[in-house]
Amino acid sequence: MSEGVTVGATDGLDLSHQVEQSPEFRAAVVDLLGALAYGELMAFSQLARDAESAPSHPDRAEVSRLAVAEFHHYEAIVARLEQLGVDPEGAIAPFVDAVDHFHERTAPNDWLEGLVKAYVGDGIAQDFYREISAYVDEDTRDIVLSVLADLGRDAYIVAAVRGAIKADPKVAGRLALWGRRLVGEALTQAQRVGVERDALASLLVGAPGRPGADLAELGRMFARLTDEHTRRMGNLGLSA
Amino acid sequence: MSEGVTVGATDGLDLSHQVEQSPEFRAAVVDLLGALAYGELMAFSQLARDAESAPSHPDRAEVSRLAVAEFHHYEAIVARLEQLGVDPEGAIAPFVDAVDHFHERTAPNDWLEGLVKAYVGDGIAQDFYREISAYVDEDTRDIVLSVLADLGRDAYIVAAVRGAIKADPKVAGRLALWGRRLVGEALTQAQRVGVERDALASLLVGAPGRPGADLAELGRMFARLTDEHTRRMGNLGLSA
Repeated sequence: MSEGVTVGATDGLDLSHQVEQSPEFRAAVVDLLGALAYGELMAFSQLARDAESAPSHPDRAEVSRLAVAEFHHYEAIVARLEQLGVDPEGAIAPFVDAVDHFHERTAPNDWLEGLVKAYVGDGIAQDFYREISAYVDEDTRDIVLSVLADLGRDAYIVAAVRGAIKADPKVAGRLALWGRRLVGEALTQAQRVGVERDALASLLVGAPGRPGADLAELGRMFARLTDEHTRRMGNLGLSA
Repeated sequence: MSEGVTVGATDGLDLSHQVEQSPEFRAAVVDLLGALAYGELMAFSQLARDAESAPSHPDRAEVSRLAVAEFHHYEAIVARLEQLGVDPEGAIAPFVDAVDHFHERTAPNDWLEGLVKAYVGDGIAQDFYREISAYVDEDTRDIVLSVLADLGRDAYIVAAVRGAIKADPKVAGRLALWGRRLVGEALTQAQRVGVERDALASLLVGAPGRPGADLAELGRMFARLTDEHTRRMGNLGLSA
């Protein structure tokens, strides 16, 4: 799903001692895992609800299966938090409002909007987490990347949405608008989190003794996120 | 959860050849698996929705985990249907109305009603499936029994409901009424299925060349179901 996203801006740098030794770095890693954990738990709920509006039993089963995959991701992240000796409840708390707001403002009105949300909304969030994971220790990065792996979700959604547009070309305009709205709300909430959570932001911009991304690299990162989003919309047959 | 339920009324009888040779027996097995599959898929949806009204994040995670377990049961049953060369969609179709009606008529009004439904409603349904499984072939029975295994669900729910009653004894009366309503609706839908699905009913009452339960055994079966229900209500601190 993200051929264009390069991972490993800190390749060759061993950051595992920083999780032990630097309280700020540790706080940043915990923030990343906490945000991701709550995101996955809410994605589970959203997809389980989407499944109820499925047009057929096989579709219902397919989207329920996507929901269940998100829950197992949640479990993997919680296990990593516990491994770090962190209370998952506390790690998740700072991100509840932002994630809840995102879902409240982007409640799908029908089956197709739910599919586009799962593909486009989760897609850009996952690209962002993948980018950030380049700046954390290897064990954490492994968990994050395994959680972000595509589980056949994309192929199913792309086929379903393209099929719906073929059957009724009018829906393409509505879904294209919906895709733009999803990205707008995702950026709004991401910005909010960036402002409120210094530690998480420091992963990207760096801290004493730890390199972050310079301005040029940040620019390239946003270009990659935008490119990937445009590519996903195109996969669905929608203009970004 | 069902110490009182004996399984294996046909122990020693090898029914596996009947799945191959008797179209009626095969139809009955497919009915059992179809009803159970759709029941598990809907239990997944119900619990995923219940999780959203959880009073805390750990409770939400716990009930989401119960939902996910139901979905994995659904997958196991579908795999058995496919192993038998049966289209799961067709096997499930005859039971959609009854299961949907049950859930429509027993939509929980709050978190506690959801927990009682998961324990008492699913409990009596599971006991019933367990009883019927005594009359099917061993491979099918193994799947059914593994799907009915308690996955720690009961301990969590019993503690949560008892805790709520301790904090506010008034809720016990309302939940006791709710438990009776659940059983009433479950019996109504079970009766409907029994009338509509001859093959499934024949598992219990028998068919040429295949022993079923005699009237005395049917009586004992209903007594066991009632006893288990009363025991479950008692576990929750409720009168049946």
